[in-house]
Amino acid sequence: MFSERIVGSLAGGSAIRAMFEQGNMLKKKYGAENVYDFALGNPDPEPPQSVIEDLKKFADEPGIHKYMPNAGYPEVRAKIAAYLEKETGVAFGANNIIMVTGAAAGLSITMDSILNPGDEVIVIAPFFGEYRGYVSNFGGKIVPVLSIPGTFQLDVAAIEKAITEKTKAIILNSPNNPSGAVYTEESLKELNAVLEKAQAKNGKPIFVVSDEPYVKIVYDGVKVPAISAIFKNSIVVNSFSKSLALPGERIGYVAVNPNIEKADVLADAMIFCNRTLGFVNAPGLFQKVVAEHLDDVAGLEAYKERRDALYEVLTETGYECEKPQGAFYLFPKSPIADDVEFCKKAIEHRLVLVSGTGFGYPGYFRMAYCVSMETIKNSRESFRALRKSF
Amino acid sequence: MFSERIVGSLAGGSAIRAMFEQGNMLKKKYGAENVYDFALGNPDPEPPQSVIEDLKKFADEPGIHKYMPNAGYPEVRAKIAAYLEKETGVAFGANNIIMVTGAAAGLSITMDSILNPGDEVIVIAPFFGEYRGYVSNFGGKIVPVLSIPGTFQLDVAAIEKAITEKTKAIILNSPNNPSGAVYTEESLKELNAVLEKAQAKNGKPIFVVSDEPYVKIVYDGVKVPAISAIFKNSIVVNSFSKSLALPGERIGYVAVNPNIEKADVLADAMIFCNRTLGFVNAPGLFQKVVAEHLDDVAGLEAYKERRDALYEVLTETGYECEKPQGAFYLFPKSPIADDVEFCKKAIEHRLVLVSGTGFGYPGYFRMAYCVSMETIKNSRESFRALRKSF
Repeated sequence: MFSERIVGSLAGGSAIRAMFEQGNMLKKKYGAENVYDFALGNPDPEPPQSVIEDLKKFADEPGIHKYMPNAGYPEVRAKIAAYLEKETGVAFGANNIIMVTGAAAGLSITMDSILNPGDEVIVIAPFFGEYRGYVSNFGGKIVPVLSIPGTFQLDVAAIEKAITEKTKAIILNSPNNPSGAVYTEESLKELNAVLEKAQAKNGKPIFVVSDEPYVKIVYDGVKVPAISAIFKNSIVVNSFSKSLALPGERIGYVAVNPNIEKADVLADAMIFCNRTLGFVNAPGLFQKVVAEHLDDVAGLEAYKERRDALYEVLTETGYECEKPQGAFYLFPKSPIADDVEFCKKAIEHRLVLVSGTGFGYPGYFRMAYCVSMETIKNSRESFRALRKSF
Repeated sequence: MFSERIVGSLAGGSAIRAMFEQGNMLKKKYGAENVYDFALGNPDPEPPQSVIEDLKKFADEPGIHKYMPNAGYPEVRAKIAAYLEKETGVAFGANNIIMVTGAAAGLSITMDSILNPGDEVIVIAPFFGEYRGYVSNFGGKIVPVLSIPGTFQLDVAAIEKAITEKTKAIILNSPNNPSGAVYTEESLKELNAVLEKAQAKNGKPIFVVSDEPYVKIVYDGVKVPAISAIFKNSIVVNSFSKSLALPGERIGYVAVNPNIEKADVLADAMIFCNRTLGFVNAPGLFQKVVAEHLDDVAGLEAYKERRDALYEVLTETGYECEKPQGAFYLFPKSPIADDVEFCKKAIEHRLVLVSGTGFGYPGYFRMAYCVSMETIKNSRESFRALRKSF
């Protein structure tokens, strides 16, 4: 009756969303204050007040709610290009920027634009599970490569081994969801050398698709290396979901490296896909608003405080955990090898966690710490009891 | 280097968007006031002031910009369900409503959810050219059936002939873009009888996918028959782009008829596709706003005045044209058989028109009258000269 492919996938749904809904059920049963829900990366700070003020200001602007070119408002694209040029030293122009309906849309139109049937896309585990669909929807096949256990840094030698003549792209996501790792400049330069060799051998580009929603959520003075400056064949996908705490509004951009051969054709292909996949254009009002806030970050201090507090709770109650430099996730080791079983057990202690298996990295679990300090502090005894139960 | 399928499609782009850009070039050359641009259905009224006020009001609401369930805010879905039940008599519930990023997104997730490779989707010509991509993206094949020349009403006998065992759906769009026709209740009931017979024979449903962005843009007291009340296996796709003049904001909904067998599975499939195609959820702020304005229409009186004025200009200068009952388009007959050639000639008279060929209906051309009364009045002599040139 319906699409067999889609109905067949329904049972496989999103592990994160499934836990999100399980968390909501627990809250109804026990009361929200008695459930420690670390499932969803849903930024809990409000957007900066200046963003709200600009929303109100632009809401009145004549013509702002109308159709604009499918790629977005020209002046917004120009502003982002200038910002990126300043940040990276790469000569971005407005034509290299496509406004998109969030990073998910950006990844979809990127994959639709570059993949031919059977193409392979390397992803670094642990990785955001939604990449599976963004690649398979357009005939591609993901090839997961494990990052280094513990630090979750790039294993460049393992990536080199995974490259074949069918490799069309590699998705990088740094700061990483779920590990919080920020890939070092050194490892990225090593990766670039490996890719350059492979591209010369294959006689065609391997695109670095950089999914960067967390690029501004970093701690301890860490600077995220600019992917556009390191990799010539790079496509940067960014969103304001996390930096401005606007995840429900779906606004972001794609930046096509101007040094890609036929970068103009690639941008045209993306604009075409933006239209034909049904996005049409990124929401107009928010395009104008985010262009005024390219440098802002919502809630960074609060995230840092929570990272430190949650890290302390976990290590004090007996969990093995790397202290991450970015994003708002911890990715501790599961005390038992079976992380899915561990997360099931956690529910009995009213702890909502997501198993590492969904991120292609068994033996670990993810916690999003966009929750109140109270939730973090009150979760201590549940974590202790859970740890003791093994 | 890139997707061969996509790059191969680039030349074929959207005829409407191509004329839109040609219009912009002409305006740069001759000045905007000397170009009569009827290419794009871009509502020129501003949204109702009450919509702007609600935008500002909700912008401040705590949590409104966060992730919500992929199907949308539960209270918004409930409100739309109640509204539709009142309007149609069909017992919609919140679970039958999925908030989407505009009607284009709604059509994409619908086709992704129902189509298996090789399935056929009947479309009634003239039809919105973007349907081609929304169907072919998911392995389907469009089967155009001509409407009755002049009135552009359904040719039910021709539709019956076009149905095969592979027919999975028929897309209806009434009021129609580009003809402005509103399909009569009588013809829809005849179509239902034909579909019921075919469904019994095929042993499976043929879904009526009703694309209804213009459902509130009607004139002369015409009432658009409720598709949900007539067709059991119906999926209504609506947007607020036209009714509230918010096309750049991408906000709409899909309503799955609760009488469809396994309607819950279909809704789950759509929610899954909303996530995996990269929409994630419809923009949050606008979900809340539109729920307060389900009955409002922006600019209806102005559209009617323009319809009448443009109809007078066209008929007075020698064009054959039906006076439409809805939407904001006229679809006159081209004075020469080759409508593409006719539209090229029109450019010489600074008239930007779109050929009927792009809508699967050669010999006609489309004019969007979301333009000022001045543009309409000033276009008279250009139309007269163009007519005389043949």
